[in-house]
Amino acid sequence: MHTPGSSTSGYVLLLVVQVVFIIVFGFCTDYAKELLPVKNETARAATSEPEESNLRKYPHFQDIHVMIFAGFAFLMTFLKRYGFSASGLNLLVASLVVQWAIIMRGCYEMEDGIIPISLQNLIGADIAAAAVLISMGALLGRTTPIQLLVMGIVEIAIFAGNEYLQLELVKAADVGGSITVHAFGAYFGLAVSFMLRPKKEQAKAGPLEGSSYNSDISAMIGTIFLWIFWPSFNSALVDGADQERAIINTYLSLAGATVATFVLSALVSHEHKLDMVHVQNSTLAGGVAVGSICNLLIHPFGALIVGVIAGVISVLGYRYLTPAILSNLRIADTCGVHNLHGMPAVLSAIFSAIYATFASADTYGTSLATIFPAMQNPNATGHSEMEPLEYVIGGYGRSGAKQGAFQLMAIGLTMAIAIAGGLLTGLILKSPSVRQLEEHELHKDDAFWETPSEESKNTTDTNESTHQ
Amino acid sequence: MHTPGSSTSGYVLLLVVQVVFIIVFGFCTDYAKELLPVKNETARAATSEPEESNLRKYPHFQDIHVMIFAGFAFLMTFLKRYGFSASGLNLLVASLVVQWAIIMRGCYEMEDGIIPISLQNLIGADIAAAAVLISMGALLGRTTPIQLLVMGIVEIAIFAGNEYLQLELVKAADVGGSITVHAFGAYFGLAVSFMLRPKKEQAKAGPLEGSSYNSDISAMIGTIFLWIFWPSFNSALVDGADQERAIINTYLSLAGATVATFVLSALVSHEHKLDMVHVQNSTLAGGVAVGSICNLLIHPFGALIVGVIAGVISVLGYRYLTPAILSNLRIADTCGVHNLHGMPAVLSAIFSAIYATFASADTYGTSLATIFPAMQNPNATGHSEMEPLEYVIGGYGRSGAKQGAFQLMAIGLTMAIAIAGGLLTGLILKSPSVRQLEEHELHKDDAFWETPSEESKNTTDTNESTHQ
Amino acid sequence: MHTPGSSTSGYVLLLVVQVVFIIVFGFCTDYAKELLPVKNETARAATSEPEESNLRKYPHFQDIHVMIFAGFAFLMTFLKRYGFSASGLNLLVASLVVQWAIIMRGCYEMEDGIIPISLQNLIGADIAAAAVLISMGALLGRTTPIQLLVMGIVEIAIFAGNEYLQLELVKAADVGGSITVHAFGAYFGLAVSFMLRPKKEQAKAGPLEGSSYNSDISAMIGTIFLWIFWPSFNSALVDGADQERAIINTYLSLAGATVATFVLSALVSHEHKLDMVHVQNSTLAGGVAVGSICNLLIHPFGALIVGVIAGVISVLGYRYLTPAILSNLRIADTCGVHNLHGMPAVLSAIFSAIYATFASADTYGTSLATIFPAMQNPNATGHSEMEPLEYVIGGYGRSGAKQGAFQLMAIGLTMAIAIAGGLLTGLILKSPSVRQLEEHELHKDDAFWETPSEESKNTTDTNESTHQ
Repeated sequence: MHTPGSSTSGYVLLLVVQVVFIIVFGFCTDYAKELLPVKNETARAATSEPEESNLRKYPHFQDIHVMIFAGFAFLMTFLKRYGFSASGLNLLVASLVVQWAIIMRGCYEMEDGIIPISLQNLIGADIAAAAVLISMGALLGRTTPIQLLVMGIVEIAIFAGNEYLQLELVKAADVGGSITVHAFGAYFGLAVSFMLRPKKEQAKAGPLEGSSYNSDISAMIGTIFLWIFWPSFNSALVDGADQERAIINTYLSLAGATVATFVLSALVSHEHKLDMVHVQNSTLAGGVAVGSICNLLIHPFGALIVGVIAGVISVLGYRYLTPAILSNLRIADTCGVHNLHGMPAVLSAIFSAIYATFASADTYGTSLATIFPAMQNPNATGHSEMEPLEYVIGGYGRSGAKQGAFQLMAIGLTMAIAIAGGLLTGLILKSPSVRQLEEHELHKDDAFWETPSEESKNTTDTNESTHQ
Repeated sequence: MHTPGSSTSGYVLLLVVQVVFIIVFGFCTDYAKELLPVKNETARAATSEPEESNLRKYPHFQDIHVMIFAGFAFLMTFLKRYGFSASGLNLLVASLVVQWAIIMRGCYEMEDGIIPISLQNLIGADIAAAAVLISMGALLGRTTPIQLLVMGIVEIAIFAGNEYLQLELVKAADVGGSITVHAFGAYFGLAVSFMLRPKKEQAKAGPLEGSSYNSDISAMIGTIFLWIFWPSFNSALVDGADQERAIINTYLSLAGATVATFVLSALVSHEHKLDMVHVQNSTLAGGVAVGSICNLLIHPFGALIVGVIAGVISVLGYRYLTPAILSNLRIADTCGVHNLHGMPAVLSAIFSAIYATFASADTYGTSLATIFPAMQNPNATGHSEMEPLEYVIGGYGRSGAKQGAFQLMAIGLTMAIAIAGGLLTGLILKSPSVRQLEEHELHKDDAFWETPSEESKNTTDTNESTHQ
Repeated sequence: MHTPGSSTSGYVLLLVVQVVFIIVFGFCTDYAKELLPVKNETARAATSEPEESNLRKYPHFQDIHVMIFAGFAFLMTFLKRYGFSASGLNLLVASLVVQWAIIMRGCYEMEDGIIPISLQNLIGADIAAAAVLISMGALLGRTTPIQLLVMGIVEIAIFAGNEYLQLELVKAADVGGSITVHAFGAYFGLAVSFMLRPKKEQAKAGPLEGSSYNSDISAMIGTIFLWIFWPSFNSALVDGADQERAIINTYLSLAGATVATFVLSALVSHEHKLDMVHVQNSTLAGGVAVGSICNLLIHPFGALIVGVIAGVISVLGYRYLTPAILSNLRIADTCGVHNLHGMPAVLSAIFSAIYATFASADTYGTSLATIFPAMQNPNATGHSEMEPLEYVIGGYGRSGAKQGAFQLMAIGLTMAIAIAGGLLTGLILKSPSVRQLEEHELHKDDAFWETPSEESKNTTDTNESTHQ
């Protein structure tokens, strides 16, 4: 029996979306001013510095690019029969949403109706794509490609608004994106998963919802590249000493989370054996948990502690919480994004509130204004030379405790918006006009991909014997 | 029955070639002047800037290095039983030809009979190796290792001459190497493939000329790393704003090509299912198609359009053109390099001619002389301070339309030289003194590699059962 | 029959070690001064340069990070049934020892009892971890996870002392760490392996001590990323022209080693077929062999010669020496680290002695003092402005020949310390209180990992047939 392929209407729709994106790019974007040729040498000299400043971020950008397009892709290949979809759809979804993210995020930084495009926009778009890929992780194997793309488009629009709200209006500190990316992506995806929840008795792992020996190894490609480049993800948006602290803290937090993951995995697993699911995911929880605080003065031992706690929580989540949520609420979470992204991100937000409460100009000196912009006092001397301050919810001159409260507000608002957005998106995805997966198509490439036939597979496995 | 291994004479010849290379390096190369120690501190201060300038390219170099040695290697592992050869011979061929490329390309920049070696030469050598690896892709599984190496040596010599011709004498704009690398490598390889074409009825896919589930996943490692680092490939040879535009345009073109690839793949494939061959290759066509124009003012929406067109053409090529060429002309193209490199490169050259036609000092300002060197007017004021202009075919002071014509001349000449060189090379490779593959050795590691025996393989597959 | 899992006591001990590390970090470390906020703008301006200087190394750091966490990890996945352990335990061991290396190496650079932490410490810690992972390669599949961790902790303590001794007191030139990292790690591991040697007749390759087709491909991921980024490993600790020469020499040496590896592999292997073990390992020997001399004026052709010799020695080692050592001395060396790291490192030290002997201020100019610090003459004019010279064994003002002798002393001392340390460590690891592997647990993930069950595996392999 052949599995019927996807109808073509979804892909035609995708083409239409791409054409619309091109038109929007045509009318609403241009290269940033410093990337346009100058008319004479004098002008070039004046603009040479900003150019360099952007390109200095290029190695960071490429590290993040590896995370988004190789890290997430291979991490999701852990399912035994979903590797084409994991690696292929990751590429498709990310390629589409980075374009859309440049547009949506650009809406908040337009100049004369034009979005100025520079390397900064690509970094921002890659980071935004992470949120969608996290949500995809929650749903892995349970949607059609078109459902994923629809989700990505709705999600990016909401993501861009929430990011602007938290970073520009609430002025939350979140350089590693734990709040705006990880918490947002995880709870958005879980809310979609809730809407797409199976009926009655189907809420159990399907026959293909597991790994094979080879798929577990290829998933480790993803894990390891994510692990390696996470310091770049967390430090890409800061500079100088702040950037170097962000690198150090993320490095240490990941190391701590990794050790904690192995310990906990052995302690709670069947026969005290290590579980690849934990190693593939919980080792990364340290990068998420330190995200909102990695540029703060959390001290190296603070970074280690954060990592260890994140590893512990994440493994316990995989072992006890995810099965409970599946059986009680019927919310499937294929990759366990709640344990890798959701809970560690909430942890990061709580830590950021605590550290903000104790932050002051005494400890942070002149960098307080960079790290917690809303804590600077606009009336203090020296600020007269600065550009006029932007509007901020709750105003400038916040005390540490007040900034801490706003950090909690940021995570609370983000979760509320993500969950509401996810529920709405799920409603769209399960509308009768959208093709849903049949149960026998779950976690299986064959529904949407041409896969090598058994015949040729046997030829491979036994090709030595053809000579006998 | 054991497959007879290669005779050792080919490998002894390889050793001789390596020794010759060492001798040539000994007599004809040295570190570039700025890399030699200085005798006193004053001199060091004077040379410190060029040093930094080279090292600033190091992250770009390493990205390209990943593409050449990991990207191409894993992309070619898609064949079910040719992974050792794909990953191993890629390493061998590239290691040999980078040495040779340093020498051959260095012939055109000798100073006092000595090739000055700096990081620039390494970047150039890696890029040259790409041309050979592209040709290797056309022939994958149809040659002996020694045939590949012979091809690489002949190809690099011709490549270096053609590169000098197009970039220094014709002064074509081609920063991403679409003309000099991709078109050259693809048509050279296809011409070799034509010379090695099978007799009469054998011109069909062999029994091992397909993928397995695992080999398709490992090929995606190659695809994804090529995709990620392509912006570095296209932007490595330019600086400042030009470099940043090259990055942005390549990023967008790849994104557009990826979306177009999935759409077209679903529309034209069997049962409208996605085809991994398209995803592994056509997603990258956007990087090739934007290569010659990525530093021009093509606008972000122009980059997207180029990518979409490239993706469409490439998928259609895989679906319809490659099988037709195989059955009609008996030209095999195992990796489909004509669809990934050949046609998109020609497309890029055509676009470069169009954009050149409309280029002027009004739009490009002072960067016109950098982007289209032959369009600068040597009589204009200010140039008296410059070093004397080099000889250029057709002279300086070209109009935009004339530059456009030279762009077309560059692609035409390149294709002619590549095809002539490939035919000549093929003639050498099929000479009676060179060992050819038997038909049963096609696309199979076992002819040249010790492979794990079936016995040990069974032990692996059933090792659980040994406890029962 | 189920294999009994590990007892939990080892993992509880690991948790205790992690907590102890956190406490030590809390009391003995802080961010380096330039990473702490400054109190006013004047101070910031003064410190801005050192910050940049550290961050300039970040791309180099990330390349090394890839080598340690992806390169070593995947290289060790070559065993058919030990991929979970190879990729997982590499991550665990490295995550633990980088923390410990920051502490132990920091002991030699404390300021007021506090270790100042910057990006430099992370680079140093990653490099130190390489030594432990090399030792792990010798023992791969023959220890429990806990034994590896105990080894790592002892090894790092001795490593840090030896590194300080050779680089600061003996003042050996070793920028690529061939002496302090590769030789140390290899001979340390071999000494441990000697202590853990099997009894009487068991000294032969076990049934699982081989590769499968897929595991050989995944090992190539490791090989290729190590190969690509080795120039970064060798050049990370130098600057300017020295750094660029280190990059060029390492690049050429690797290319030469690769060609030599293929030639020798074909010449000495069974039926003259290529052997994946050689390709996976000996191609990298060029990076080790050039390590101690890569920043010297060895000329490009010198780099190629060193690489070729290293490739030849390494393949011969795999083919003849390792089996002889196993059968005669019962020293197992699963990954053949003696051939990849041990012998090439000794070769590098010998070359460094030769080049040092002929080094003089005439050839090296002002960089002599950077490359061979103990060769500078403290009485010469100009040094009065410098900071007081540190204590150096044998004093300053060494002649070239004397420096050469000290290079040999460095490798001799390192090997003696590594072997003594390894024997001691082996004694600890085989003490009755430490769980040893049973013979049937060798080279097998199942002893310590939950692995996908045969049932699910069959489902994978035959999932097409479920529709029939």
